[in-house]
Amino acid sequence: MRNLLEKLLDGKITLDQCETLLKAQNIQELGDNIKLDLKRKDRTGFPEAIFAENKSDEDIILIINSHIEKNDDNLIITRLDSNRFDLIKDEISSKDKDFKLIFNKKARILIVKLRQVENKDFKVGIITAGTSDIPVGEEAKVIIEESGHKTITSYDIGVAGIHRLFPQISKMIEEDVKVLIVCAGMEGALPSVVAGLVDIPVIGVPTSVGYGVGEGGIAALYSMLQSCAPGIAVVNIDNGFGAGVFALSIVNNL
Amino acid sequence: MRNLLEKLLDGKITLDQCETLLKAQNIQELGDNIKLDLKRKDRTGFPEAIFAENKSDEDIILIINSHIEKNDDNLIITRLDSNRFDLIKDEISSKDKDFKLIFNKKARILIVKLRQVENKDFKVGIITAGTSDIPVGEEAKVIIEESGHKTITSYDIGVAGIHRLFPQISKMIEEDVKVLIVCAGMEGALPSVVAGLVDIPVIGVPTSVGYGVGEGGIAALYSMLQSCAPGIAVVNIDNGFGAGVFALSIVNNL
Amino acid sequence: MRNLLEKLLDGKITLDQCETLLKAQNIQELGDNIKLDLKRKDRTGFPEAIFAENKSDEDIILIINSHIEKNDDNLIITRLDSNRFDLIKDEISSKDKDFKLIFNKKARILIVKLRQVENKDFKVGIITAGTSDIPVGEEAKVIIEESGHKTITSYDIGVAGIHRLFPQISKMIEEDVKVLIVCAGMEGALPSVVAGLVDIPVIGVPTSVGYGVGEGGIAALYSMLQSCAPGIAVVNIDNGFGAGVFALSIVNNL
Amino acid sequence: MRNLLEKLLDGKITLDQCETLLKAQNIQELGDNIKLDLKRKDRTGFPEAIFAENKSDEDIILIINSHIEKNDDNLIITRLDSNRFDLIKDEISSKDKDFKLIFNKKARILIVKLRQVENKDFKVGIITAGTSDIPVGEEAKVIIEESGHKTITSYDIGVAGIHRLFPQISKMIEEDVKVLIVCAGMEGALPSVVAGLVDIPVIGVPTSVGYGVGEGGIAALYSMLQSCAPGIAVVNIDNGFGAGVFALSIVNNL
Amino acid sequence: MRNLLEKLLDGKITLDQCETLLKAQNIQELGDNIKLDLKRKDRTGFPEAIFAENKSDEDIILIINSHIEKNDDNLIITRLDSNRFDLIKDEISSKDKDFKLIFNKKARILIVKLRQVENKDFKVGIITAGTSDIPVGEEAKVIIEESGHKTITSYDIGVAGIHRLFPQISKMIEEDVKVLIVCAGMEGALPSVVAGLVDIPVIGVPTSVGYGVGEGGIAALYSMLQSCAPGIAVVNIDNGFGAGVFALSIVNNL
Amino acid sequence: MRNLLEKLLDGKITLDQCETLLKAQNIQELGDNIKLDLKRKDRTGFPEAIFAENKSDEDIILIINSHIEKNDDNLIITRLDSNRFDLIKDEISSKDKDFKLIFNKKARILIVKLRQVENKDFKVGIITAGTSDIPVGEEAKVIIEESGHKTITSYDIGVAGIHRLFPQISKMIEEDVKVLIVCAGMEGALPSVVAGLVDIPVIGVPTSVGYGVGEGGIAALYSMLQSCAPGIAVVNIDNGFGAGVFALSIVNNL
Amino acid sequence: MRNLLEKLLDGKITLDQCETLLKAQNIQELGDNIKLDLKRKDRTGFPEAIFAENKSDEDIILIINSHIEKNDDNLIITRLDSNRFDLIKDEISSKDKDFKLIFNKKARILIVKLRQVENKDFKVGIITAGTSDIPVGEEAKVIIEESGHKTITSYDIGVAGIHRLFPQISKMIEEDVKVLIVCAGMEGALPSVVAGLVDIPVIGVPTSVGYGVGEGGIAALYSMLQSCAPGIAVVNIDNGFGAGVFALSIVNNL
Amino acid sequence: MRNLLEKLLDGKITLDQCETLLKAQNIQELGDNIKLDLKRKDRTGFPEAIFAENKSDEDIILIINSHIEKNDDNLIITRLDSNRFDLIKDEISSKDKDFKLIFNKKARILIVKLRQVENKDFKVGIITAGTSDIPVGEEAKVIIEESGHKTITSYDIGVAGIHRLFPQISKMIEEDVKVLIVCAGMEGALPSVVAGLVDIPVIGVPTSVGYGVGEGGIAALYSMLQSCAPGIAVVNIDNGFGAGVFALSIVNNL
Repeated sequence: MRNLLEKLLDGKITLDQCETLLKAQNIQELGDNIKLDLKRKDRTGFPEAIFAENKSDEDIILIINSHIEKNDDNLIITRLDSNRFDLIKDEISSKDKDFKLIFNKKARILIVKLRQVENKDFKVGIITAGTSDIPVGEEAKVIIEESGHKTITSYDIGVAGIHRLFPQISKMIEEDVKVLIVCAGMEGALPSVVAGLVDIPVIGVPTSVGYGVGEGGIAALYSMLQSCAPGIAVVNIDNGFGAGVFALSIVNNL
Repeated sequence: MRNLLEKLLDGKITLDQCETLLKAQNIQELGDNIKLDLKRKDRTGFPEAIFAENKSDEDIILIINSHIEKNDDNLIITRLDSNRFDLIKDEISSKDKDFKLIFNKKARILIVKLRQVENKDFKVGIITAGTSDIPVGEEAKVIIEESGHKTITSYDIGVAGIHRLFPQISKMIEEDVKVLIVCAGMEGALPSVVAGLVDIPVIGVPTSVGYGVGEGGIAALYSMLQSCAPGIAVVNIDNGFGAGVFALSIVNNL
Repeated sequence: MRNLLEKLLDGKITLDQCETLLKAQNIQELGDNIKLDLKRKDRTGFPEAIFAENKSDEDIILIINSHIEKNDDNLIITRLDSNRFDLIKDEISSKDKDFKLIFNKKARILIVKLRQVENKDFKVGIITAGTSDIPVGEEAKVIIEESGHKTITSYDIGVAGIHRLFPQISKMIEEDVKVLIVCAGMEGALPSVVAGLVDIPVIGVPTSVGYGVGEGGIAALYSMLQSCAPGIAVVNIDNGFGAGVFALSIVNNL
Repeated sequence: MRNLLEKLLDGKITLDQCETLLKAQNIQELGDNIKLDLKRKDRTGFPEAIFAENKSDEDIILIINSHIEKNDDNLIITRLDSNRFDLIKDEISSKDKDFKLIFNKKARILIVKLRQVENKDFKVGIITAGTSDIPVGEEAKVIIEESGHKTITSYDIGVAGIHRLFPQISKMIEEDVKVLIVCAGMEGALPSVVAGLVDIPVIGVPTSVGYGVGEGGIAALYSMLQSCAPGIAVVNIDNGFGAGVFALSIVNNL
Repeated sequence: MRNLLEKLLDGKITLDQCETLLKAQNIQELGDNIKLDLKRKDRTGFPEAIFAENKSDEDIILIINSHIEKNDDNLIITRLDSNRFDLIKDEISSKDKDFKLIFNKKARILIVKLRQVENKDFKVGIITAGTSDIPVGEEAKVIIEESGHKTITSYDIGVAGIHRLFPQISKMIEEDVKVLIVCAGMEGALPSVVAGLVDIPVIGVPTSVGYGVGEGGIAALYSMLQSCAPGIAVVNIDNGFGAGVFALSIVNNL
Repeated sequence: MRNLLEKLLDGKITLDQCETLLKAQNIQELGDNIKLDLKRKDRTGFPEAIFAENKSDEDIILIINSHIEKNDDNLIITRLDSNRFDLIKDEISSKDKDFKLIFNKKARILIVKLRQVENKDFKVGIITAGTSDIPVGEEAKVIIEESGHKTITSYDIGVAGIHRLFPQISKMIEEDVKVLIVCAGMEGALPSVVAGLVDIPVIGVPTSVGYGVGEGGIAALYSMLQSCAPGIAVVNIDNGFGAGVFALSIVNNL
Repeated sequence: MRNLLEKLLDGKITLDQCETLLKAQNIQELGDNIKLDLKRKDRTGFPEAIFAENKSDEDIILIINSHIEKNDDNLIITRLDSNRFDLIKDEISSKDKDFKLIFNKKARILIVKLRQVENKDFKVGIITAGTSDIPVGEEAKVIIEESGHKTITSYDIGVAGIHRLFPQISKMIEEDVKVLIVCAGMEGALPSVVAGLVDIPVIGVPTSVGYGVGEGGIAALYSMLQSCAPGIAVVNIDNGFGAGVFALSIVNNL
Repeated sequence: MRNLLEKLLDGKITLDQCETLLKAQNIQELGDNIKLDLKRKDRTGFPEAIFAENKSDEDIILIINSHIEKNDDNLIITRLDSNRFDLIKDEISSKDKDFKLIFNKKARILIVKLRQVENKDFKVGIITAGTSDIPVGEEAKVIIEESGHKTITSYDIGVAGIHRLFPQISKMIEEDVKVLIVCAGMEGALPSVVAGLVDIPVIGVPTSVGYGVGEGGIAALYSMLQSCAPGIAVVNIDNGFGAGVFALSIVNNL
């Protein structure tokens, strides 16, 4: 800053130029500090993640290859259909780095594995109301396991078949899960019922599985937000990724 | 019709006039036949009902007094707040007919009683998720009882307090109710849970009790329409009256 | 429960473990009781049904083959397009059980037939406003007939051609139908008009046939919910299945 | 324009000033021509109308008094509640002009009468589904009669009481109405049913009388727009004024 | 009716059977009368029309061939894409009747021509805001011309290029059009501007041409319904057919 | 159950009665078990809470007085405006129990205090974007503190004044808060920005403070659900209570 | 930072404490830098503004009095109804500072004047479609004039009365306005028409003046966003303040 | 006009014909004047632009070829997918004019280049939150550069990675950009954060990149409209073109 002011005094820059450059410098310094702060991020256990929808294959290949060159952490690509994975997998390469590509078809997630993740102690329970909700549950599962924690899953237990619900919840409590992720489309009542039975945090994930008035998952979302049951919070429709990361923010601080 | 054609031939009316009058006559005849048909209605057990909201006090007084003069059946006024009832009750009168005014404050229903209703055999169960839903449940109750059938009510048993639900449903089945009316606002999950437990028709009535995304009852409505449970149908938000009439259409045909 | 407490006293498990296991056991017991209760379900006449949309072909084949091995009841697959049926039909097999595959193309329903259904006495009327609404009406028809009841259908009688409506309704009343299912998209006025003519329950099924403001069926749904006609209740858009099951809940209790 | 260019050549104005003034002049000339055109408007039979909602009492008094001074045509104030009329009526005055204030309480319309309207030959039919829709129907009525045409009204004939509909329509056709205005809130289906019976233009006016999903009139509006019946067009919710003016645009050209 | 009562007295039918059959007969008679009334329809100039969207090719062929056998009037098939027309055209046939198939690709309308339409005197103006709105305008055009009236079209004159609007409107007034149909997507302001210039009825047709907040045509629809301009009414989004029929209901009564 | 079967064998009840009573008993048993399970609830730290909106004053007084008689735990009444509190406070009484009424005007919460809550160790941070969001933040605060945990609040720090945000977040991290509750109406972006800075769970609470497109809080809700920031979940609009309970479900399990 | 690390090495703080404090310090530093940057803000010409809606009178008095003590810049309070101003004006005071309260009733803005604003050179044009839109226009006007710039206003010139528009626009161009703010409710077409006539930036402000489908201003907003006219951008419904500030961001950089 | 009146006096036309022709002439003259005015447009720097979506390939080829024949200005075709460009490019031709086709695949824009654009002095900054938003940013970029101004772009800097934001903004201020265009889908908060840092106009462009509740871009749009940050206005979802033209309306007047 002093440097700029000296230039101003020496007449090398005008007052206007000086003001413009000072404004720019102020914002630049903000960035520098934030970068310092961001180093902390690297330790928190959320690997970097890329949302593949709305991105071209070229963009994704570019992002992955560039990540491999510059980083030692794993990279997660979400919402990548298996046929898109087949199209791009041979384009991913590195001259001098070792990496593995691990693709989970149900979850539509690709993990670019640059290092092994250390095992951690906690368990997260993942429940889906129907088989159609499984991809969302799997997305959460991969995110959590990629951070080293464990998951217990119980898929296809809806409110209509309430008898399938109780023994599954029972088993999860027995296994000492710390958080429950509950994915449901249609009427979205499952998280409410589950939250009425347990005293750990329940993360509701509405899915886009409904039809008619519930098309796109809005009915399930609204139902979960309206829930009278205690201890429930919600993420965006189909956002298994976000539910997983939120669960991590809880178990990483235990 | 022949009459008109004769007039046409006699030159008393023009072709245009004749055509216009014939069109009118055709529609008139429709009306006459329908009136015949409508006599049947009088025997079906649905008393005539007036929706008081959006009507001025003057209009309601006029409708009631005119009904008393011309009919021997009872008249039901729905959605009449108690303070409105207080304002109009002294204006309702008849020179030569006996009638009673029976006002149910919770249900906001006024019955103009011109004759006694005969008792009938069947029972309808009415459940509300919370105390705020009671006015809607009461509306259904009055409608059903005014037709001579019986009701069993169980108010304030939500999904969050699922333990209060089971013994109540149990008791209703024991009492052999033929239909269940389930009123719920908020997340509207109660009808789904109930329909998962019984094998009689469940009529869901969403109520406008929610707030935030559920304001006005839309979340509850959508949740009920999306229900995966078998044997559930839905009426409009807060439409206890419609639920009662629909229940009557079932029990009257048993 | 005593067992756990003894283990606690004997020091084989800690207080924390004991508490966790007791919580789990409580929920487990709930499940056991509900299972008892659920046996009752098997007798109620609703065959198990699977919603094929949003499920992969693999999942559906798995569900069907697994059902055949473990059950003697029929299985219904709804919303299965004919080309999907063609793709999966050869994968459905059993080593030692006899079954038949009955596919209704219009209704998009596959019935996996493991046993013959006994004939029952009641009739349900099914009406559609236009030919485009027929698949929804057919879905209801298959569900009802698969339970052994009869249906009378009358397709393509809209409000605009109101003259086609009356003789059809007349014939249905003559045949003593116990419930009317009325499917309509566009302006959705048909169920109101029908309910104004008859005194049996009318189940409105909005269909997604509309366009412009009515796209997806919301206009038809709202129109039906708003109906002033007596004795009408509504299911979700295109939910012929739900309408059929609700009709069964009425006729099974006659 | 030449004048400006000469000033430019003479150096009395700069090029920039000249350009700015030319731009302004172009737009000004547009305005002048449009004013010529607008004189024609005065003969078309639509009196000037002011929408009172969202305007302060002061503004309305100002507009009326200013109109009286400058015009010889009548002025219509719509959506003016009777208590607002009571507040402002004594403030309306003129030093030297004769006028009358005619207030229609149901229609919530004030007519500031400066001259007598000549009688015209045509009739417009106005129908409302319920008594709550009458204010909207009355608004249309006043607008049409203020232009010298006649109206025939038939209020409170819904689809649920379809027997009340036919003789009324019959009478209107007999009276040779040229257009039908049909106002309905709950029963958005009424215009469809009417349009299915007649072969003159039907103008649907949705009203905000509904509740639940129909609150604010959206359900009625969508139902009318979706209508399969021939010869129906729609105006905004509660827009009796617009329906009246549209009807005038038809009968004034007969 | 007497017949039934006699049977009842003779004990040939039970009281219940008699009641059921009388109910049916009442409704049947309604139908008979309405049929009489409907004969009138044939003279009103609206040819029968079929909406092809949501109907299978098989259904459409069936409807057309059956129409040809039983009628002498023309039949209109709307919303029929040209590739669908190519698929079905060879399946349309008749053993003994002469007919012509006239397909308008832009309008996506097929006319099954069984008789020549007589020429009539009136003109309807059709305006579209952009080239993308032309199919909707063409749909209205075909409907009107198929009834024997004339149309004058002016496509692609939006509000942004307001200078293209004035001479076109001028020409239409000069040609003495009786009604103006104005099709517009995007902000839907064109009908308001046009209605501000003329004193004949303006029918606004919102089109689904918008994007972003206007996707599907809702912004255009709402804009037209909100219009402050006098003499404007609206039909459903993309409903060129409805606009054409409504225009006919006006000009047929001139 | 055996008892019922014996009665059946002894002919004291019919088969139908027996079936009905067995169905009822099954459901009753479910209820008994759930009650056992619910005892656990009493120990989890969520005091019973009543939502006062939509309930009459009479209902609330009844609920409170009845609670005092039957319980030793505290009771929380939420959404109770101070003028309503003034109206009811003198009606709350008990013959033989000691209690205190603690009313928080900003939070609109009444605590009926029957016993002292023990202090616990953890801290929850509560942030609001503007002063208008404070009531929602206070609601969460009272809920958390009533369970014995501590809160640190920082009100009125929006995104537009981002400089006010950083030192506050810094202080909260320093104080070792375990969860952050972030309430925002206009600035729905605040939880995203906060979640981008910390690695503990962030609970977003949209408030109904917005206007225009944001009226009712929907814009804020959607903005939070869309957040790309890691570690964020959301509760219903204005649901400070739910956010507080969810935060408790996390800290109670630490 | 070094200080903390030394403490860590000296064992005065634990590793965990050190990590927590470092995290906090990083964020704190961000705040410090941003504060530096924010000083720049003081020179940009946007006075601090407070939105009074949703704030209690107590809060507003507190904010104003506290501002007066600590600042020398003016303070703007928006959306303050005149009756609220009357209630609070006597509570605003300062021991030792001079200030003036300037209240604009139409604009509902209070300016707490601590210093005189210097006059600037540029003009902004403000147009409203109707008299009901004037408060929104006035809000923009006060904001702009409070920054020292000039405004030219032209209120009540809608699309329906297009002849009133042209001379006004002409005059504004003549006066060399640099930006046009156009406020309109109802169909919101005015900004599109204006933007089609001028080549300076047009800021559209939808107002909540509509009714029916346009209630709350959504129709006007969508219409403006959909505009095909060049050079138009939009702010929130009724956001005259935002339009004014955006206009300032343009003219302050000329 | 005189001409028409003379014809009238001479009896060559009737009074009615004369009136109709005068009406037409009035509107025609409006058009003539507006055309004069529109010449001005040619100088303002917005090249003519065609929106390719919803137009057939044939229409686009016709528009381009016709433009080339009649104009010397460039023509811009927006929203033209690269595969559509491949299909039509060989059909674009001219007998006697030189032109170049410049296609930008990311921006989906085709420029039909008939003349070179002169370079201008100002810079516009363009920022996108994610790589998926780049096409929208590119659309704005091409529009601005095609008018001769310069752009500085910074793609993929979201709120979640706030550290990437500051140095980029800093650089843009340093480069003296006059306007900032900020495109964001998921992160609708980005324009708010940017506007909080700079004192030049910020144009927010919501993109349709979101999913779940944000699908189609509505959440991003509402978030931007709600922004409390000063100096921000918004265009339609994905409307990079509109943002570019609005930016030009600012810089062209500097």
